[in-house]
Amino acid sequence: MLHAVIMAGGAGTRFWPESRVARPKQLLPILGGRPLVAETAARLAPLVPPERTWIVTGREQAEGIRAACPEVPVERLLLEPCGRNTAPCAGLAAAVIATEDPEAVLIVLPADHSVRPREEFQRALRAAAAAAAEPGALVTFGIPPTRPATGYGYIRRGEELPPLEGLRRARVAAFTEKPDAERAAAMIAAGDHLWNSGIFAWRADTLLEAIDRHLPDLGAALAELAAAWRRGTAAFTAALDRLYPGLGSVPVDVGVMEKADSGAVVLETPFHWSDIGSWQALHEELERDSDDNAAVFPAGGDLLTLDAGGNLVWSAEPRLVALLGVEDLVVVHTGDALLVAARDRAEEVKRIVERLRAEGRTELL
Amino acid sequence: MLHAVIMAGGAGTRFWPESRVARPKQLLPILGGRPLVAETAARLAPLVPPERTWIVTGREQAEGIRAACPEVPVERLLLEPCGRNTAPCAGLAAAVIATEDPEAVLIVLPADHSVRPREEFQRALRAAAAAAAEPGALVTFGIPPTRPATGYGYIRRGEELPPLEGLRRARVAAFTEKPDAERAAAMIAAGDHLWNSGIFAWRADTLLEAIDRHLPDLGAALAELAAAWRRGTAAFTAALDRLYPGLGSVPVDVGVMEKADSGAVVLETPFHWSDIGSWQALHEELERDSDDNAAVFPAGGDLLTLDAGGNLVWSAEPRLVALLGVEDLVVVHTGDALLVAARDRAEEVKRIVERLRAEGRTELL
Repeated sequence: MLHAVIMAGGAGTRFWPESRVARPKQLLPILGGRPLVAETAARLAPLVPPERTWIVTGREQAEGIRAACPEVPVERLLLEPCGRNTAPCAGLAAAVIATEDPEAVLIVLPADHSVRPREEFQRALRAAAAAAAEPGALVTFGIPPTRPATGYGYIRRGEELPPLEGLRRARVAAFTEKPDAERAAAMIAAGDHLWNSGIFAWRADTLLEAIDRHLPDLGAALAELAAAWRRGTAAFTAALDRLYPGLGSVPVDVGVMEKADSGAVVLETPFHWSDIGSWQALHEELERDSDDNAAVFPAGGDLLTLDAGGNLVWSAEPRLVALLGVEDLVVVHTGDALLVAARDRAEEVKRIVERLRAEGRTELL
Repeated sequence: MLHAVIMAGGAGTRFWPESRVARPKQLLPILGGRPLVAETAARLAPLVPPERTWIVTGREQAEGIRAACPEVPVERLLLEPCGRNTAPCAGLAAAVIATEDPEAVLIVLPADHSVRPREEFQRALRAAAAAAAEPGALVTFGIPPTRPATGYGYIRRGEELPPLEGLRRARVAAFTEKPDAERAAAMIAAGDHLWNSGIFAWRADTLLEAIDRHLPDLGAALAELAAAWRRGTAAFTAALDRLYPGLGSVPVDVGVMEKADSGAVVLETPFHWSDIGSWQALHEELERDSDDNAAVFPAGGDLLTLDAGGNLVWSAEPRLVALLGVEDLVVVHTGDALLVAARDRAEEVKRIVERLRAEGRTELL
């Protein structure tokens, strides 16, 4: 059966002041609709119904996730006692799901990305499920790049494989970490690179075998955790508390995919995709007016501009926001804080969060 | 006796969204302390005690003025049914006060200016009172200019008169309306011009005689209003309703002072003065940090800056405001609206108010 594993950990400081420790990006209605995690879960249906949708998250976020995704059964929430990056997260889900469904094929995806249109994503899901069913296949979704982005990892296409659902498929020749501008331009020019979306598909047993080979400590812990899962919630929670903090913090791309040699397969998925990594990136994701201004408000709020362009306004409360003669700003208004930043420096909001942490102003974190 | 007449009419759209129709600039604690009208009244004591302090304002502002200046007796509030600029305003006060104190000398001043230090203002008050006691004298306070401002009117000094309290005094050679930049520079270079502060001193009877001569219609109306004042509050209010709307809207400088020939006297008052005509001007009035940022907050609010300079932040609510990589902005945060403007375009906030009025959004006016 096809299951989905939504990776919904991570506090996320890049959307401060809207994002907070207890209100991370995946719980924010950042695109103006539902919380991102709810959008992500909804995008999976009908191929993956809620009862086969698993969400891995931190314990402090469990309540928020349940409120955002009430249709997902509570026993499908896997609560990490601490964050250990995506290899333990994906491994934990695979180990647990394999105890219930040894033939399970998993779609593993972050909770907080923007993907559209839904139909294209569904087509990619079908293709990925078929690709992952093949023995030893570790499938990654590669996005045809539209610009020489330096904020994403890249995948170089290797030997071409037969397409599925009309989507190109190839072995992975190489993974590349976030490049500098020159290298990014060269990869775009070469035409054989795709963005690494962080969305994967594999059989649970295929991933667990790869983990056993390349990350044997993690593999041993996962075997214990699977055994504990079979003994019930209390045993599982106790095992998580005992084992999880000792795991290495490793991304699944680096720890498993890059070492998988011929097993790593990239599926070219030509839907629109963004990891919405900053307020700047959100500006690109939203609808904009003729002056390139984007705004997100609850009902009753709105934007009035006079000679203002290229701005992003985000308000958690219904307000009139008036912009006069200003360009390329990010303006974020929440119940207790207001951020005004140059849009091209929006990645640096984490510096503000660091400053607040250093000053012990936990009420604003 | 020396009386003061505080001119506190005017809605003021230049401090939107903090200023509103029912909360005009003079009622705002715009310098971070008390409402401006309260600062103005306090600056007069002990030379002019509250029982000789008169405040002329609009009826819709009466409640706000009383709350801001509880020490001023309610019978000292003169409530205009509509605004008719400063000649009717100053004339009304003179006519009423003369019925109670025929020898009255008046200091007439706007409610919403910034003046400091208080000691220098008091010295100017004493000098002005002495100057105004002379027959036929219509005294105006002239501020030594510190820059070629185009937003102020100017006064050219004529024949020198003996100083008072150590302050230079001269006949007025000419009044000049707000000049263009070239003309302003020329006046500064000539060294014989002062800024027209809009603060005046005269005997009530001297002003009324000048009005009778130069604005006879106003003079006739003021005679009727004085008679009505003697008959009591109801008669006075009825007379105001009947006569005031028909009066011409004339500034006292233009309608009286400019025509006063040798009677117009300028006292050089070397205190710091600003009419705080915009958010931009307020930025200059406030204390600023080493990066030229100024901020006004209620208790519990504060400003955090990262590579941000030349900004003015005004918040009506306790918030953290974080500025990242932005320069020369005005950020104004109130309960229902947020303004972000280029500081050098702050005068144009009235365009926003006009737009809101055109859209019928009276709740924001």
